[in-house]
Amino acid sequence: MAPPQSVDISIPQARRIAVDTTGAQIVQEESPATRDSRGIYLPHYIEPVSHIAIDIGGSLAKVVYFTRSNIPISTTPPLSSPSTPFLPPSQSVNSVRPSSPNAGPSSSSSSSSPALNPHSHAPLDPSPLDHRRPTVNGALTPGVLHPNHDGHGRSKRASASSTSLASHPKLRRSSLPAPLPGGLLNFARFETSNIDDLITFLQELIETSATANRVSLARMKRNVKVMATGGGAHMYYDRLRTELGVEVAREDELACLILGLGFVARIPEEVFWFSEELVYKVSHPVEPLPRPSPTPPAYQVTFARPGEDDDVHFPCLVVNIGSGVSIVKVDEDGSFERVSGTSLGGGTLWGLLSLLTDAQSFDDMLLLSERGDNAAVDMLVGDIYGSDYSKIGLKSSTIASSFGKVFKKGANPEERKKSFKQEDIARSLLYAISNNIGHVAYMNAAKYGLDRVFFGGCFIRGHAATISTLSYAIRFWSKGTMRACFLRHEGFLGSIGAWIKNVDGDGNPPTANGVEEEMSELKLS
Amino acid sequence: MAPPQSVDISIPQARRIAVDTTGAQIVQEESPATRDSRGIYLPHYIEPVSHIAIDIGGSLAKVVYFTRSNIPISTTPPLSSPSTPFLPPSQSVNSVRPSSPNAGPSSSSSSSSPALNPHSHAPLDPSPLDHRRPTVNGALTPGVLHPNHDGHGRSKRASASSTSLASHPKLRRSSLPAPLPGGLLNFARFETSNIDDLITFLQELIETSATANRVSLARMKRNVKVMATGGGAHMYYDRLRTELGVEVAREDELACLILGLGFVARIPEEVFWFSEELVYKVSHPVEPLPRPSPTPPAYQVTFARPGEDDDVHFPCLVVNIGSGVSIVKVDEDGSFERVSGTSLGGGTLWGLLSLLTDAQSFDDMLLLSERGDNAAVDMLVGDIYGSDYSKIGLKSSTIASSFGKVFKKGANPEERKKSFKQEDIARSLLYAISNNIGHVAYMNAAKYGLDRVFFGGCFIRGHAATISTLSYAIRFWSKGTMRACFLRHEGFLGSIGAWIKNVDGDGNPPTANGVEEEMSELKLS
Repeated sequence: MAPPQSVDISIPQARRIAVDTTGAQIVQEESPATRDSRGIYLPHYIEPVSHIAIDIGGSLAKVVYFTRSNIPISTTPPLSSPSTPFLPPSQSVNSVRPSSPNAGPSSSSSSSSPALNPHSHAPLDPSPLDHRRPTVNGALTPGVLHPNHDGHGRSKRASASSTSLASHPKLRRSSLPAPLPGGLLNFARFETSNIDDLITFLQELIETSATANRVSLARMKRNVKVMATGGGAHMYYDRLRTELGVEVAREDELACLILGLGFVARIPEEVFWFSEELVYKVSHPVEPLPRPSPTPPAYQVTFARPGEDDDVHFPCLVVNIGSGVSIVKVDEDGSFERVSGTSLGGGTLWGLLSLLTDAQSFDDMLLLSERGDNAAVDMLVGDIYGSDYSKIGLKSSTIASSFGKVFKKGANPEERKKSFKQEDIARSLLYAISNNIGHVAYMNAAKYGLDRVFFGGCFIRGHAATISTLSYAIRFWSKGTMRACFLRHEGFLGSIGAWIKNVDGDGNPPTANGVEEEMSELKLS
Repeated sequence: MAPPQSVDISIPQARRIAVDTTGAQIVQEESPATRDSRGIYLPHYIEPVSHIAIDIGGSLAKVVYFTRSNIPISTTPPLSSPSTPFLPPSQSVNSVRPSSPNAGPSSSSSSSSPALNPHSHAPLDPSPLDHRRPTVNGALTPGVLHPNHDGHGRSKRASASSTSLASHPKLRRSSLPAPLPGGLLNFARFETSNIDDLITFLQELIETSATANRVSLARMKRNVKVMATGGGAHMYYDRLRTELGVEVAREDELACLILGLGFVARIPEEVFWFSEELVYKVSHPVEPLPRPSPTPPAYQVTFARPGEDDDVHFPCLVVNIGSGVSIVKVDEDGSFERVSGTSLGGGTLWGLLSLLTDAQSFDDMLLLSERGDNAAVDMLVGDIYGSDYSKIGLKSSTIASSFGKVFKKGANPEERKKSFKQEDIARSLLYAISNNIGHVAYMNAAKYGLDRVFFGGCFIRGHAATISTLSYAIRFWSKGTMRACFLRHEGFLGSIGAWIKNVDGDGNPPTANGVEEEMSELKLS
């Protein structure tokens, strides 16, 4: 594999992303429940960063922050280590390994062995990690507190001003331990309804950072900026400013979404899809594709190689599946437009299954769905015809009506509910919503002549069945001419974008406000 | 209004519909619960008919049969009688009457006052009519038993053969009361899960007809043919043949659907849409259309005028919403192709609401939904933003996520269910499914360059909110350039088509099998 390169990509407003992604690695997960929130280690990004990005959606708040931890990143695996590939549920975990020479023909296009342990293969954990509040990892490093860092930008700008920060006695902190090269992009997730947990987390992060940097909390706060996006950036703006006591900037969520996609696609092993095999094979079709179903044909995972594949570039369609679904057309120059959407999204699944099952979390619902059989609740073509409806190519196993079998059973809701397994209900609904999104996404991609569809948002959660369904819907409806692309940090595109927004072309926060404030204070003290 | 004409229309396989629809009238309903199953009186259709058409879908079985009743059709209103117009729920029942000179500007395009009492304005009936089994109305009139009828066709063909049926002493039945001119196309509906009820009904119809025609049951049965379509035509083929003891022919459901549409569109006051005002106004837009919502802008109903408007003709898109949804592209010559569909249809609403509410029937669910407020369960843009998301034109009242508010409440499903009103749940789900179908339908119409979308299927049930939602979805997404068309017998298109299939170009059953059998029997006796 060629080394990842720090290439410039086209992003909205012709912004240049200055974060050096050379040698970037996704940190090995500790638990499947945090699959999509593992840190990204950036060994060559040495700039001080003191801003935190949050993307507060209707259901979930996503946090991104950068730390230059003094703790060695022991969990980072070598890229060549053997690991479990990400597979659709119909394949055995051990049946195909991209790194194995016995992987079979479809694995040949895999670029390397990913460190993916999909949620779907995790044992059922009665108290999954995501039920707990995430803990702070490392500390923020405001540049103004580290004037001797070997970067350039804020400290240079400061030294170009009449008062050199570097020469100020209060700012000489040679006793601080020398940081490791680079640092870690951290990810954390909260339920928006538990906004207090998010605020507590941010307070702890700021406090920890003050301690680590050996400055007062008040001073730390003056150097921290929260980049907020998503609807909650507006909804909770006042609370964030008041309770955190830091500057809060609001950014448009779609701009952040596209910016975040542009950045994260540069991280090796971030973007993947289900085998390009079929995409190329379609020019010589052997037989028609089977129709979409909850158990679509299994394909091998392939990772995009940033800097080599052109597959991570614009133009494309971006389908962000949060509580609801936004469908965004992105042009070659990174300009974008929200062209469609549907209210049948993650919030719908979560809401309906919280009425219909005992699952206590979204991940529990996904786990439930894996043990279910949708045919127990869905009306299949075979249930209506007694056979295939071969004249129009509908097999007896095709779902004619999601939940179409339910009303026939029992005299009242309670009796009816007892006739059906929660697992079957979960599987049916997950498939119905995923397939509907895939269908609508395909139609939009076709309408705008786009052949790549990126799926983001916390609905996906790296869940194999969801990815298979979306992937196959795009493949089936487009007759194999389109590719559905996924991301390992799919839920954090908006917050990553908000984080990038505060990094200027020199790898530093674009405004010197924090520095100027600091200087004012110093003058006054 | 010009008199309806019996014009030839293009239908599949270049079949000519020979049923004379001159002067056809839709019989005044007796109950809102039978709104979509009122008879069609055909005063000039005088041919004997002895076939019954059934369309057995996944959830419902629809029956069509023709009777020349000796009972005067007292329920048929004069076309000029004042009656309640069909209105979207946001309009008061009494606020706009197409027949009134005070109807306001939007009513000017209405062709006449329809006899529509939409279900939505009916008082809540604890035991709606559709919970009961429909009763037989009138009798079938096999031509072979009425050789002296004043039509032409079968009896002529019979008399052209070596043995004249008319001269056979057994067939002279001058003591039969003279039938009224024309006859009635009758409609009845059953749950497919209660297939026994359907079979009992058909047995009664055949028995009643035998009595009315004063022939033996065995003889009647030899003259009755069941034209069966839908998946159940295959699933229940053997049962129908065995238990009814009559000939059963199976017909393709999509062919019947399109044929039925072609026929029924010729009936005055059958096809309607929500005001053409906006369709024409769109070339001079004043302000953008508000986004789809459960309370879309109200528009006046306009009825197509068969023979005058060209709006009932092909090409068009036909969206049939039964348990699931089929989307069919129909070309100008009546040839058709199923191009899309979704499993989120009537069965989904019925199934999910039968788990989530105490409603005992589909109509109860529709009634529930009328009293609900979806904002109690749906996550709106305002719930996320605290305001509009004006940058991309999403108002605070726009639904971001259907059921997106649900998961936040309560610790378990039972507690959560108690936090929400069944009415609100019903309204949210009805809207979500209707709007999704409208969206997918629009995208298909746009893809194939079609500007008319006909919605059929028993999901609609003449329900104002459903029609408003579908209508507005098409209008909004197409920026007013497409028209959503509805039918008063929307659920019976397939069965009407199956009925037509057995009527040949001379207005008679296309095969003379029945006659030949009858003659064999006569020879043998």
